[in-house]
Amino acid sequence: MNRHELRDLILKKQSFLCIGLDTCLNTIPSFLKDIADDPVFEFNRRIIDATIDLTAAYKPNLAFYESHGSKGWESLEKTMHYLADHPKGPVFTIADAKRGDIGNTSAQYARAFFEHMPFDALTVNPYLGRDSVEPFLSYPGKWAIILALTSNPGAMDFQVLQPQLPLLLEKFGIKTCYWKKLFELVMEECQQWGTPENMMFVAGATHLDFLSSIREIVPDHFLLIPGVGAQGGKLEEIARMAMNKDVGIIVNSSRNIIYASSGRDFDTAARMAAKALHQQMAHILKTKD
Amino acid sequence: MNRHELRDLILKKQSFLCIGLDTCLNTIPSFLKDIADDPVFEFNRRIIDATIDLTAAYKPNLAFYESHGSKGWESLEKTMHYLADHPKGPVFTIADAKRGDIGNTSAQYARAFFEHMPFDALTVNPYLGRDSVEPFLSYPGKWAIILALTSNPGAMDFQVLQPQLPLLLEKFGIKTCYWKKLFELVMEECQQWGTPENMMFVAGATHLDFLSSIREIVPDHFLLIPGVGAQGGKLEEIARMAMNKDVGIIVNSSRNIIYASSGRDFDTAARMAAKALHQQMAHILKTKD
Repeated sequence: MNRHELRDLILKKQSFLCIGLDTCLNTIPSFLKDIADDPVFEFNRRIIDATIDLTAAYKPNLAFYESHGSKGWESLEKTMHYLADHPKGPVFTIADAKRGDIGNTSAQYARAFFEHMPFDALTVNPYLGRDSVEPFLSYPGKWAIILALTSNPGAMDFQVLQPQLPLLLEKFGIKTCYWKKLFELVMEECQQWGTPENMMFVAGATHLDFLSSIREIVPDHFLLIPGVGAQGGKLEEIARMAMNKDVGIIVNSSRNIIYASSGRDFDTAARMAAKALHQQMAHILKTKD
Repeated sequence: MNRHELRDLILKKQSFLCIGLDTCLNTIPSFLKDIADDPVFEFNRRIIDATIDLTAAYKPNLAFYESHGSKGWESLEKTMHYLADHPKGPVFTIADAKRGDIGNTSAQYARAFFEHMPFDALTVNPYLGRDSVEPFLSYPGKWAIILALTSNPGAMDFQVLQPQLPLLLEKFGIKTCYWKKLFELVMEECQQWGTPENMMFVAGATHLDFLSSIREIVPDHFLLIPGVGAQGGKLEEIARMAMNKDVGIIVNSSRNIIYASSGRDFDTAARMAAKALHQQMAHILKTKD
């Protein structure tokens, strides 16, 4: 799905929501284990049917499938084929796999997610540099979503590293010129390798103060924004700081939607949680126009 | 396998070799596809039987299995069970998966590789920081192998980043004090989270000039060193710069061993390539003692 089609999909559905399918056998309603051979797929199928008209994208989190080995990968493959053939599709699909390896190995990961499975996009860790990212950029209509600034506490360990001299001077009250942080350098560098047609960036919503500078560095790229709760209290602020002329943002919510209820009503509860975010997004998109 | 056991295994076998199982359906001898239901497993099985007495470790590269989806994961699971039950075992096993995600997701990856499959170690990308690494450190006898400095060209993009002021001053011939590079900061920081009993570092052999400073920063940790060719011309130099009192290095070779021949003699050719490295390693270990 190219950028034009993605923007049109978002505007048509009035939703820039991405639902994270962090589907864990230990967390899904236990009755599913009694009625289905593949309870992980059955959970996904019902979540998808209950929410597909409200969401622009789905994002299976690979770790949850891999923890069941080849059987987990089967559940994922079934989910992807179900999505590909869904009468209410198309919908944008993101493999949240955070892959990245030396060139010839990244090329194999690209085959896994873009050829063997029909994902539109894959999250990619930039630590190994250019040859680790490029194999994901050569598939027309497919996307590498580069981790720039993530939403977890550990994001503060390396991603915001910057030279120590300015920090030291600032400690003594000496104002220094602007100095780039690692995630900013990552975005600047990666822009040289890809385009807004095949590359997005992860920009965690837990760091609202950085969103404006992120948008300055990558004015045209789509941003995948994780870390927004079901209440979506921050949605307005995120949209104000990060939207661009093509909408340009996809906001993810995982557990707050798919685990909104642990009972037999899990799918209707998921729909209600998604609906709440959808309404806010539709309002934001209307106000923008 | 704890550090003591790993060191003893290396000394007993007189080998600090790791054989990378980058097993690709398109590269393995084609006759295997005619005689085996699972040619990837059959290739691995024969490589293992031909080399297990010469090597301290095997390192399947996940990307090559994932490119065949759930079937590829099945081949990997069979390989791991074959290794676990091998009469010439035990042997150290590394999942070269370069995983790393927010805390609860890394915990799922740990389950995948340390519980669902019996790997001893997993390569981990540090970009997401502390909570992305810690879940891999809580399994006794299991290891997180942190990517510090990788062996690919892209390693120069971010891993060696350092403050720009010293570089600028050096350009004008002004000698500045030592300034840390990103991979050095990564090693210093990660040392705070783990110990030489549950953490190793990847240190690419393409950057021999950095090996001494790596060993200064992490004197006691094992290093996984990729990027050594079958000729192993650099082995002596690597050993001199990076060995410590517990040996402390595992040197990987993948394609130069497993694809030493593309014919029916692939396993005996692999044995010969492994044997050449083994002989040099045995010599180095003897000279050291």
